[in-house]
Amino acid sequence: MGIAVLGTGGGARAHIAKLAELGHEVHVGTRDPRATLARTEPDMMGNPPFGAWLADHPGIQMHTFADAAERAAELVISGIDGHNAVAALSAAAEQLATKTLVDYAVPYIYNPDLEHPWPTPWGTMPKLDPCDTDSLAERIQRALPRTKVVKAFVTQEQDTVVDPKGVGAGEHTMFIAGEHTDAKAAVTDLLKAYGWTDILDLGPLVSARGMEMYAHMHSAIGFALGFGTHFGIKVVR
Amino acid sequence: MGIAVLGTGGGARAHIAKLAELGHEVHVGTRDPRATLARTEPDMMGNPPFGAWLADHPGIQMHTFADAAERAAELVISGIDGHNAVAALSAAAEQLATKTLVDYAVPYIYNPDLEHPWPTPWGTMPKLDPCDTDSLAERIQRALPRTKVVKAFVTQEQDTVVDPKGVGAGEHTMFIAGEHTDAKAAVTDLLKAYGWTDILDLGPLVSARGMEMYAHMHSAIGFALGFGTHFGIKVVR
Repeated sequence: MGIAVLGTGGGARAHIAKLAELGHEVHVGTRDPRATLARTEPDMMGNPPFGAWLADHPGIQMHTFADAAERAAELVISGIDGHNAVAALSAAAEQLATKTLVDYAVPYIYNPDLEHPWPTPWGTMPKLDPCDTDSLAERIQRALPRTKVVKAFVTQEQDTVVDPKGVGAGEHTMFIAGEHTDAKAAVTDLLKAYGWTDILDLGPLVSARGMEMYAHMHSAIGFALGFGTHFGIKVVR
Repeated sequence: MGIAVLGTGGGARAHIAKLAELGHEVHVGTRDPRATLARTEPDMMGNPPFGAWLADHPGIQMHTFADAAERAAELVISGIDGHNAVAALSAAAEQLATKTLVDYAVPYIYNPDLEHPWPTPWGTMPKLDPCDTDSLAERIQRALPRTKVVKAFVTQEQDTVVDPKGVGAGEHTMFIAGEHTDAKAAVTDLLKAYGWTDILDLGPLVSARGMEMYAHMHSAIGFALGFGTHFGIKVVR
């Protein structure tokens, strides 16, 4: 089944590589494929240029966001950063209509003047927008009413999302939320293929607020455990 | 050792009863002890009147907030709701000076017109204030600079805080944050006495933002599991 992954950052790469390993036809979307492939510098998170990475992952096709979405049979994973997601996805609204879109972004506002643009729980703190009374996932759903938006993959690194057994033998919880039962079922099937066993449906998309706001907690835990430690959280009941 | 618990709601009662059971001298603080004892109706969360509850818990002393704080040897637990905490604690600033104050409140703004004033992840949603760029715990620390504020007890019901083994055999994580190492050590000792084995220090008080913002996630998980289910979260690493 053709699956589209929009974005070429570290999180998107984790999904692209794993989906290809699982035998899926993967269509990668980027704003401008030619410009992405022409880059020779690491991206702002320190990942090697995507073209070099792609050379080690044969058979993966690159398109514009809209073309990649059009080629997906059903499932589209958005790895577009929170700040740009609504605008970039809206430009592909026609191609995303009737499809399931997984959004895992945290809508952080980064300060581009910072040397390290990722969140830190002390010193400089990023800010969420929206927050508390709205969420990025709800914004995307409002902007793309014909698309079935599912919030998921938010409470751990994407490397852990595609390899849950890499942390604590997989004994942790994946959360999903959304308005569309069939879309959540499709995402649940993918998560089971990734190796997840404890998948908790948090109900409608309003629960994306809590999932996105958990980002501050995730950062604080990550810094407490030591930067770069991979971890998950398990709901113990 | 004398420990003060400020507040008479359900969470405060869990701590009062457990501390008494552990053999501590417990001093309960309330705005107006006479008015609290005169009440004959359940409180807004449906708890029985505090006077009736107290009759079943002999040996517990009631005072004003300030008098209770003064009688604490070191540790004061605030069970004052988030909306009133800064004002109520500021009025007892002298008595709280040099002491360790545990704050577990979530700064929800409730809508008093709602039939059920607790948070729901769908339908009517409460709002946090402060949120994202500040926290209630940081506000309390700024208002009481001579007090050692520790944020803790936030990611589960207080019934679970005082009885961690009641959920998943205690295999879940307690988070603490604050600027004062000795204060965090005192709270950690109390948590061990409560039965906690996995206590994760999230560093300085700025981490209280994530802990408080987790409230939306906690509500969503609680509704997904079924209202009234007790649960905790474990950091799996």
